Amino acid sequence: MSSQSSKKSATAISPTRGENYAEWYQQVVKAADMAENSPVRGCMVIKPWGYSLWENIQRVLDDKFKETGHQNAYFPLFIPLSFLQKEAAHVEGFAKECAVVTHHRLEVGSDGKLIPTGELEEPLIVRPTSETIIGDAFARWVQSYRDLPLLINQWANVVRWEMRTRMFLRTAEFLWQEGHTAHATREEALEETMRMLEVYAEVAEQWMAVPVIKGEKTAGERFPGAEQTFCIEAMMQDRKALQAGTSHFLGQNFAKASEIRFLDSQGEQQYAWTTSWGVSTRLIGGLIMTHADDDGLVLPPKVAPVQVVILPIYRTQDDRSRVLEYCHAVARALRSQRYAERPLSVQVDERDERGGDKVWHWIKKGVPLRVEIGPRDIEKDALLVARRDRAHKDKQAIPRGEFVATVTTILESIQEALFERARSFREQHTRRIDTRQEFYDWFTPERVQDNEPTPIHGGFALAHFSGDVQLEAQIKADLGVTVRCIPQDGSESGICPFTGAPSQQRVVWAKSY
Amino acid sequence: MSSQSSKKSATAISPTRGENYAEWYQQVVKAADMAENSPVRGCMVIKPWGYSLWENIQRVLDDKFKETGHQNAYFPLFIPLSFLQKEAAHVEGFAKECAVVTHHRLEVGSDGKLIPTGELEEPLIVRPTSETIIGDAFARWVQSYRDLPLLINQWANVVRWEMRTRMFLRTAEFLWQEGHTAHATREEALEETMRMLEVYAEVAEQWMAVPVIKGEKTAGERFPGAEQTFCIEAMMQDRKALQAGTSHFLGQNFAKASEIRFLDSQGEQQYAWTTSWGVSTRLIGGLIMTHADDDGLVLPPKVAPVQVVILPIYRTQDDRSRVLEYCHAVARALRSQRYAERPLSVQVDERDERGGDKVWHWIKKGVPLRVEIGPRDIEKDALLVARRDRAHKDKQAIPRGEFVATVTTILESIQEALFERARSFREQHTRRIDTRQEFYDWFTPERVQDNEPTPIHGGFALAHFSGDVQLEAQIKADLGVTVRCIPQDGSESGICPFTGAPSQQRVVWAKSY
Repeated sequence: MSSQSSKKSATAISPTRGENYAEWYQQVVKAADMAENSPVRGCMVIKPWGYSLWENIQRVLDDKFKETGHQNAYFPLFIPLSFLQKEAAHVEGFAKECAVVTHHRLEVGSDGKLIPTGELEEPLIVRPTSETIIGDAFARWVQSYRDLPLLINQWANVVRWEMRTRMFLRTAEFLWQEGHTAHATREEALEETMRMLEVYAEVAEQWMAVPVIKGEKTAGERFPGAEQTFCIEAMMQDRKALQAGTSHFLGQNFAKASEIRFLDSQGEQQYAWTTSWGVSTRLIGGLIMTHADDDGLVLPPKVAPVQVVILPIYRTQDDRSRVLEYCHAVARALRSQRYAERPLSVQVDERDERGGDKVWHWIKKGVPLRVEIGPRDIEKDALLVARRDRAHKDKQAIPRGEFVATVTTILESIQEALFERARSFREQHTRRIDTRQEFYDWFTPERVQDNEPTPIHGGFALAHFSGDVQLEAQIKADLGVTVRCIPQDGSESGICPFTGAPSQQRVVWAKSY
Repeated sequence: MSSQSSKKSATAISPTRGENYAEWYQQVVKAADMAENSPVRGCMVIKPWGYSLWENIQRVLDDKFKETGHQNAYFPLFIPLSFLQKEAAHVEGFAKECAVVTHHRLEVGSDGKLIPTGELEEPLIVRPTSETIIGDAFARWVQSYRDLPLLINQWANVVRWEMRTRMFLRTAEFLWQEGHTAHATREEALEETMRMLEVYAEVAEQWMAVPVIKGEKTAGERFPGAEQTFCIEAMMQDRKALQAGTSHFLGQNFAKASEIRFLDSQGEQQYAWTTSWGVSTRLIGGLIMTHADDDGLVLPPKVAPVQVVILPIYRTQDDRSRVLEYCHAVARALRSQRYAERPLSVQVDERDERGGDKVWHWIKKGVPLRVEIGPRDIEKDALLVARRDRAHKDKQAIPRGEFVATVTTILESIQEALFERARSFREQHTRRIDTRQEFYDWFTPERVQDNEPTPIHGGFALAHFSGDVQLEAQIKADLGVTVRCIPQDGSESGICPFTGAPSQQRVVWAKSY
């Protein structure tokens, strides 16, 4: 059965997570051929393997948006400068670092070089987010309470001029969806805000196998202009938090800035209540840092671009055609089945490469199941099957009929194992903390080898907090740690370990991306 | 059976096509609630009804791209100015009118106004098309003949600073897909160019019911930098041509500008042969102008966001619940069926509006089948069914069971009728012309009422042409008429009616969008 070797073997990714986490991440992205940096500052090229993963995540999200009554639409890429002027708090938080279009023509100068000409009367901003331009449309679309709720989503690219970028996690341009809704009452808008938070949590946990904590942001971490910001937070393997999605209750702030008003059923003019919510290609960064290991990417089966890869192993040309024929027959039997609401995605790797190179190619790409088939396997009518969530030498010989009959069960078992591993990792690195000393110790790296601080330490601290803004700022300055969220289901009376003030619940403190 | 009224009734769209074609178009878009102009110059907002149609067209195209071996990827929105400098012919044709990003920050000035700051060292162009930035990536990705063919597609927004814009047909920002491929040989690249032209023609004709002529552009109408440009051309109801998709054979021009080179199997360095091909939201403009009538939009069933709308007709509250229950039962029976590779899209219009208002709402939105159900229909267990391709008063009573059993046949019959109607319209307004006089007459409006020229006249002229560039320019100057394409299957010896030169085939001349 299991043939796991006890011999220590080199890893496919160098450096390993333990050696240099940030560099390990870049190397995983590169080895899986998901994306690369482009010649445009801070912008990446999403390569087919990364984009296909995004398409799968998009499809799941889009289906859920439509099931919950939302419709897609598309709004302009550009926002007139005057629109941003309307919402001062919003600009302060968002629009400071952005791409500004000032000219609309190129001309060839006397030296043969291109020069921008045709200066615009009003500069245009490449959208960093679309509340203001969508608010302008909503003001036209919403006239009466009969027009509400208005439930719109947009799939789009946005640009924020980030100084320090990292592929998928933080890039100047990124792909995302932004939901924008308008409602007749505060209650309905809040309900919508929470509904979409649930959708995000469901997609993260049940599809991407990324466990998340749902909660609310403190005032300091809120979306500029929002009354309340809710989020899902995940723990990465360096024990830092990643904000994987946000849902904002905007109250009437944006409705007032954009004049979104309606006649209620009594004939009175009212401002609408609005929400916005979004997730982005950052989700892919979160997926990588949750599941990938020192051999590369590890993909949850439900969103994997390829769920099963079949690797024909042969030496002679004669073997080749026999083996390929058999492999394609297996592939057809698998493709006739469905898993995660789509036909099984199966690829036969026909490239003329060494067997070992092929195996490592797909390990690094994170494909959930690898099936090796050579002449001897065909004789036995059995396949050598390896799961990406287990050691790479751990291969099982499974009779063909049995494998075809149980493949979706195996995929589901991988999906669950990944989720459980991530949840257990998070629990292992989450601590309930009740004293200031323990809190500071938790977030201060030990000094080990050569007296160097360990790069990976701490995790999530669950500590009482009374909402003291100055304390939050102090802890951020001291330790680089912030309140990631006030968890949804955490009511518990206690005392803030820093101020001694009474507290209604524990919050999640962590370092973060 | 048929109850078509002979009484002339007012049309839902004013003006009609005959009265003012351009304004009719705008009113159709507005009445169907597909899109609207935005406050950003030349940019439109694509509203849910228009966007949903785009999603359906996208899905069909995307499936076909994948079936033909292409993979999606995503490249930066911005192109460094120096990249455009590399391909002079390309800039001349394309990048002159474009959006130029020159700053990356906004600051609040002393008067409280936002000012662009942080000037970029090198301006960035918002992509008008991505040959140069994708070429840069291809130069990295292609090293050996083993890396070829490289078959990539991108779904993206692009910006061209158009002066005169019209929703869907010509907007500053639009949505499109751009395919970019690299090949080892001229033959393979040409094959790819033609394969994608076929895909476009198939989607236009078989899905959008828009008949097209496949052909090649003359030198003057070629994509800047291409060796050959192929296109599909459709006739609109004002008898002008609309270029609905293009596929370019770029030879080695872009490969040389971007240094896309590979080691061939003999170990020699070669430049790759590349292609690019694209269709855009302009397809929607073409669909509208092919099928819509004086009552509004007419949607081909295969791509319609809603294929069947059910209109409950009732007066009392008691009737309402009975009628709604029955309507939803019919809807469920329909939704369990598939047509055009998706479950039937059925909507029950529950809004409390007058029956007539509801009917006209959906006529203007172009839904292929309307089903009216009132208390008396329920008694008879029969539905009143109206097809959007027939007069609005032409309603048929069909027993429920029969309708449910034949609904996909009826939808297919509408799909075919729309295509046949459009093809017959095109044939009716296409003329084989062999003399200069007839040609000039064909494209010169008659003067009729009040001695005003008829706005709609002419059509396609099939005339011999020897390829004389100056003649082409002269005819364009005289009549505003150009060679739309040299049709694919049109070999026929003859004589150019203008120059007397021998000609190998007839070409399509027309006014165009």
